[in-house]
Amino acid sequence: MNLDAYRTFLTELAEKSGAFIRPYFANPGLVVEIKSDDSPVTAADRGAEELLRGLIASRFPDHGVIGEEFGDTNANAEWVWVLDPIDGTKAFITGVPLWGTLIALLHRGQPVLGAIHQPILGQLMIGDGVTTTLNGRVVRVRSCEKIETATFLTSDPLNPAKYQDGAAYDALSARARLVRTWGDCYGYLLLASGQADIMCDPVMNPWDIAALVPIVRGAGGVITDWQGGDPMRGESIVAATPSLHAQVIAALNPRRS
Amino acid sequence: MNLDAYRTFLTELAEKSGAFIRPYFANPGLVVEIKSDDSPVTAADRGAEELLRGLIASRFPDHGVIGEEFGDTNANAEWVWVLDPIDGTKAFITGVPLWGTLIALLHRGQPVLGAIHQPILGQLMIGDGVTTTLNGRVVRVRSCEKIETATFLTSDPLNPAKYQDGAAYDALSARARLVRTWGDCYGYLLLASGQADIMCDPVMNPWDIAALVPIVRGAGGVITDWQGGDPMRGESIVAATPSLHAQVIAALNPRRS
Repeated sequence: MNLDAYRTFLTELAEKSGAFIRPYFANPGLVVEIKSDDSPVTAADRGAEELLRGLIASRFPDHGVIGEEFGDTNANAEWVWVLDPIDGTKAFITGVPLWGTLIALLHRGQPVLGAIHQPILGQLMIGDGVTTTLNGRVVRVRSCEKIETATFLTSDPLNPAKYQDGAAYDALSARARLVRTWGDCYGYLLLASGQADIMCDPVMNPWDIAALVPIVRGAGGVITDWQGGDPMRGESIVAATPSLHAQVIAALNPRRS
Repeated sequence: MNLDAYRTFLTELAEKSGAFIRPYFANPGLVVEIKSDDSPVTAADRGAEELLRGLIASRFPDHGVIGEEFGDTNANAEWVWVLDPIDGTKAFITGVPLWGTLIALLHRGQPVLGAIHQPILGQLMIGDGVTTTLNGRVVRVRSCEKIETATFLTSDPLNPAKYQDGAAYDALSARARLVRTWGDCYGYLLLASGQADIMCDPVMNPWDIAALVPIVRGAGGVITDWQGGDPMRGESIVAATPSLHAQVIAALNPRRS
């Protein structure tokens, strides 16, 4: 399957949405609205998704689109784009550049291309399940064998849902050398570029996950749900180096042996 | 006391150290050494501090210097510069741009000017205890009255020392609306620019604190140690909006009433 044309288009989508979003970041005039699910949204989210949908409809009118802000369009098409214009909205509205635009391309329901774009730092990571690049340079997960020497990242330390076994999650994170909430998509970017070892994300939505799968796998990492199953099911995610992933799953599921 | 000449020099120090440090950041070839106190250091820390010391010695030969990497020089002088070339080294070595160069100027032991410089994001915050600016624009803490609506930041969620009453600290952070480790000096920058409400920092060193005092106060915030005393004593720090600061101190000292 030759994805070159889609890869080029992905870069164009990232550049155009980034140029749109950039002026809203760390802007004292930004208006934040709280959605019915208690998550924040801004004109940057909505405007960027509209822009991306327009570009896709004009270039690939028979493709489907799934987006966080405007729902599904032709979601059963052979090719479907999955959009999260600002993943990490809480970082975005706090003036912290650890958010990104997520763009994935599904072929018959499976993610074959994914991008994380951080337009303030000028970082574009693209993965296809085999290779992952950061601004064109091939990146790989680093080697880390023990949880006790790992950098452990998560999006939210106090999420009420946390992992399904909260005590196991707390015990796991207490073992790591460094624990930080450098999370949302930026945590996966750090993992895939060999700068962190474990990324745990409690409670995910489909539009948050699709882009991450080909990125993590393309960098040699492992990404599953919290029980080691298909990450696309949309439950809490564990992504890690190959050596650590099985240890993390075992630690999160202490009653299963 | 006219500090204009020092303020101009501070900007020059930030620009030159930033240009030195920038190529080391997110550089796969960066060598990290672990110091005797278990904290990491790189050639970026040491080289930047040497550069800053050289610039100060050549411009103000009778001034003293206190630095994290190379200790004290003439520390009892009337004017003393306090340097931490990379505050947030763990973020730095992880490729996360939430670190900064801290530069303070003490007059007879009291900090009269402070700067936080984030050279990747191009952010220079300067405070003199009365006014704080971010890239030349005056900034202020925002209004936040209740811990339950606050954005609560800290540098390290698992620091073994934590606050002196660890259970009180955990209970406090569990009340906040949003808790993140967007910490080290960047947490103070977010507080002073009205993007966060509480910054708690367990266990600080003098070179970490001096620059933060005139910045937080200049933005209308309150900064003390964890018991409400002089922050320059070098114990765990609480910085917050005026309404929240007393509530945070009370929550951290539950046995005092």
